[in-house]
Amino acid sequence: MEPQFRHMSIVGAQGQMGSLFSKRFRELGCFVAELDQPLEQEAIERALSKSDLVLLCVPVTAMADVLDKIMPHMDEQAVLADVGSVKELPLRAMLKAHAGPVVGTHPLFGPVIPEGFAPRVAVVPGREKHARQADQVATLFHEAGFDPFMTTAAEHDKAMAFIQGLNFTTTAAYLAAAGRCPGIENYVTPSFNRRLDAARKMFTKDSELFGTIADANPYLQETARQFMTLFSLAAGGELDLLASLAQWWWRNENPREDCV
Amino acid sequence: MEPQFRHMSIVGAQGQMGSLFSKRFRELGCFVAELDQPLEQEAIERALSKSDLVLLCVPVTAMADVLDKIMPHMDEQAVLADVGSVKELPLRAMLKAHAGPVVGTHPLFGPVIPEGFAPRVAVVPGREKHARQADQVATLFHEAGFDPFMTTAAEHDKAMAFIQGLNFTTTAAYLAAAGRCPGIENYVTPSFNRRLDAARKMFTKDSELFGTIADANPYLQETARQFMTLFSLAAGGELDLLASLAQWWWRNENPREDCV
Repeated sequence: MEPQFRHMSIVGAQGQMGSLFSKRFRELGCFVAELDQPLEQEAIERALSKSDLVLLCVPVTAMADVLDKIMPHMDEQAVLADVGSVKELPLRAMLKAHAGPVVGTHPLFGPVIPEGFAPRVAVVPGREKHARQADQVATLFHEAGFDPFMTTAAEHDKAMAFIQGLNFTTTAAYLAAAGRCPGIENYVTPSFNRRLDAARKMFTKDSELFGTIADANPYLQETARQFMTLFSLAAGGELDLLASLAQWWWRNENPREDCV
Repeated sequence: MEPQFRHMSIVGAQGQMGSLFSKRFRELGCFVAELDQPLEQEAIERALSKSDLVLLCVPVTAMADVLDKIMPHMDEQAVLADVGSVKELPLRAMLKAHAGPVVGTHPLFGPVIPEGFAPRVAVVPGREKHARQADQVATLFHEAGFDPFMTTAAEHDKAMAFIQGLNFTTTAAYLAAAGRCPGIENYVTPSFNRRLDAARKMFTKDSELFGTIADANPYLQETARQFMTLFSLAAGGELDLLASLAQWWWRNENPREDCV
C-alpha cells in the first residue's frame, strides 16, 4: 500500500513516542528524517525540504521554541502535526505559526502498549478545511497499526482533564491527606499498597508532566468543580448513590453469575 | 510452644477470614470450635462452655445479633474479640455485652496475603485493664505468622478512614465525574484502565462493605474535610505543592541514580 506521506520529518525522534512512530512509519515504507536536540538549521532545512508531513513529538512546553526553529524551512503545502497530551493551545500555536494544513493528534498510550489494549489516537483537524489532511494522518496511523478516531480539541481536552488531570489531582490530594494522619504507615493494606505502586511513577517521575498538562489544559478547573459536587455526596454520607454513579463504568458487564 | 488460648470458638468460621484463622490457629495446636449460620443455641453452648477466647469473624452489621445469641453462654473470664474493619463502635458493643475481657483486632489484609506483604493485625484492648488479654491475643496472632501491633480504637478508625474510606469515596467521585463526560470511553489510557481494574471489585462486589464502614467509622467526614482542603490546592492550580505533599510516601526511597 502506498503510504499517505512518503517523506516526513519527526522532531523529537529520540524521545519515547518519536522513536516508536519513526520505527512504525519506516516499516510502512515512509522515508523518515529524524530530528532532535540540538536542532540545527542545516539539518532542519535538509529534512523539511522533502517532507510533506512534519510530526512534532516534543513536550508541550518546548513547542514554541521548536516552531520558531522549524517554520522558516517548512513547505506551505506540508502538513504540520503534533502528538501532545493537550490539543487546544498547541493547535492554536501551530495554526498561528503555519499557514498550511495543521493536524493535532494524541496517541492515548505510552511507548509500551499493553497486550490486548487498542492503541487509540485522537485526531483533530486544525481547521475545518484541514479535514482531508486529518483523514490522511488518521490513515497513516491506521496503516501503522493504531486505532485513530476524529474528534475536536475541546472534546479531547475535556476528556483528558478527567482521565489524566483529575486522576493526578485526586490521587495527590488523597495521598497528601493520608500522609498527614499519625501512624498511617501501620495500616497499609494490600490494596492501598497497589494504589501506591500505581501512583509512584506519577509522583516521582511524571509530576512535571502533570504540571504541564495542568497549565495547558483549560478544562482542569471545570473538572475539579464537577468532582467536588460529586464528592460532596460522599461527605454527606450518600455512598450508595455515589457508588451507583461510579458503577456506570461496568454497566455492560454481564452479571452472568445471576443468570439461570 | 503452648498456645495462648488452648480452646477457642470462631463465630463466622465459614467466612473468608474466619476460615483462615481457624486453619492457622489449629496448626498452632489450638482446639477451635467453628460456629456459623444458622447459630443454634445448643452448638453455641457446647462450643463456648470450653472456650477461653471467642473470636467474632462476622460483618460489623451482624454483630448486635450475634452478641445477643452468644452472650448467655459466654464464660465471664473468657476473652471476647472481633476482627472488624472499624473498632470504636464494635468495641463499645462488645464491652456493653460482656462483663469480662474484650479485645478488638483488625487484620489489615484479606484471605489471600500477597507475597512479601507483612500481614499486620491492629490490636486494641477493650479497656485499659484488658491490656494483658490484648497481649495474649497479639501473641496468638504472632505465633500464627501474623504481625500484630497495639493501638487505640481512635487511631485505628482515623487511619482506616483514610486508607479504606477515602480511597472509596475519592475513587467513586472520580469515576462518577469522568463517567458524565461525553465520549470519555474513547480516551481510556492504559493507566486509567489499570485504575478501573483496581476499582472494579470495590464497586461491583464490595460496595456494601464500604457503606457499612462509612456508617460505622466516625471519622469519615473529618477525613473528607481534610481531603477537600488539600484538593482545593489542585483547584487553585498549586499542583507542584500538592505533588510534593503526596511524595511524602516515597521519602525514604533512595534516589540512587543521583549518587556518584
